[in-house]
Amino acid sequence: MNHESNDPLYLEDLRVGQRFASSEYALSEQQIKAFATEFDPQPFHLDNAAARNIIFRGLAASGWHTAGITMRLLVTGKMRFAAGTIGLGVEIEWPLPVRSGDRLHVESEITEISPSRTKPDRGVVTVRSVTFNQDGAEVQRLISKLLVFSRSRKSD
Amino acid sequence: MNHESNDPLYLEDLRVGQRFASSEYALSEQQIKAFATEFDPQPFHLDNAAARNIIFRGLAASGWHTAGITMRLLVTGKMRFAAGTIGLGVEIEWPLPVRSGDRLHVESEITEISPSRTKPDRGVVTVRSVTFNQDGAEVQRLISKLLVFSRSRKSD
Repeated sequence: MNHESNDPLYLEDLRVGQRFASSEYALSEQQIKAFATEFDPQPFHLDNAAARNIIFRGLAASGWHTAGITMRLLVTGKMRFAAGTIGLGVEIEWPLPVRSGDRLHVESEITEISPSRTKPDRGVVTVRSVTFNQDGAEVQRLISKLLVFSRSRKSD
Repeated sequence: MNHESNDPLYLEDLRVGQRFASSEYALSEQQIKAFATEFDPQPFHLDNAAARNIIFRGLAASGWHTAGITMRLLVTGKMRFAAGTIGLGVEIEWPLPVRSGDRLHVESEITEISPSRTKPDRGVVTVRSVTFNQDGAEVQRLISKLLVFSRSRKSD
């Protein structure tokens, strides 16, 4: 069952297995090319004709663009941590290309909660977030280690 | 020793231990806020005053922004694979915040080369890329698994 409250979340509100679903984000060809121009200027992200003959068989979004969209969907969604979404590290896989016109959404699940041994006001929470396109295909798998604070947080 | 040629790289040109250094990228406050507005709208990436009182102790770039800048430095640098830089998956850590005014560069090293068992015209190459600021501090550690083709590439 998905978490539906908009209340900010503290460490003590979380449990393994908790799930969150995001809203949807529609991606245009113009956005794919603008992102790629700035951060990933390669032909398969920039040029429709060139992209047809290479690995992705058509214009594809940069994986880093998909990651950015996923972050947007996460931080504007229901998985809203009181101190913010603070990533210590991530693992990402991009099993399928994202295309212009795709509508993406993210489904997240808390898979591990590790309270800090030295600082009892915080912990590291592992979240598995899968980004799907409108056909239900997985276009990104993300494992995030997040720093989450408890209600008893001391100043840093 | 860093690889200095601009020739496109094929699988047979690579060896474990090969190193590549990027050019430099200077990051402005305006860029930090523009990226965050689009992909990571949280106070510590958007609002100087709010950011002073929270975890990063001042405005910090989104980790996804640092990842995008790193990708730009990689694909416009000397580690230029003939078929492009095609990431299958990555691991990232962000040990320190990136600030406005920081000048970033990336140093990469090939750490593993695994020829495909089923498709002899390609392999998976693992690259470790560390992003440094102007003080030589590590702001991002990235391990990338890249799909790289050999000169004998067949059509896909």
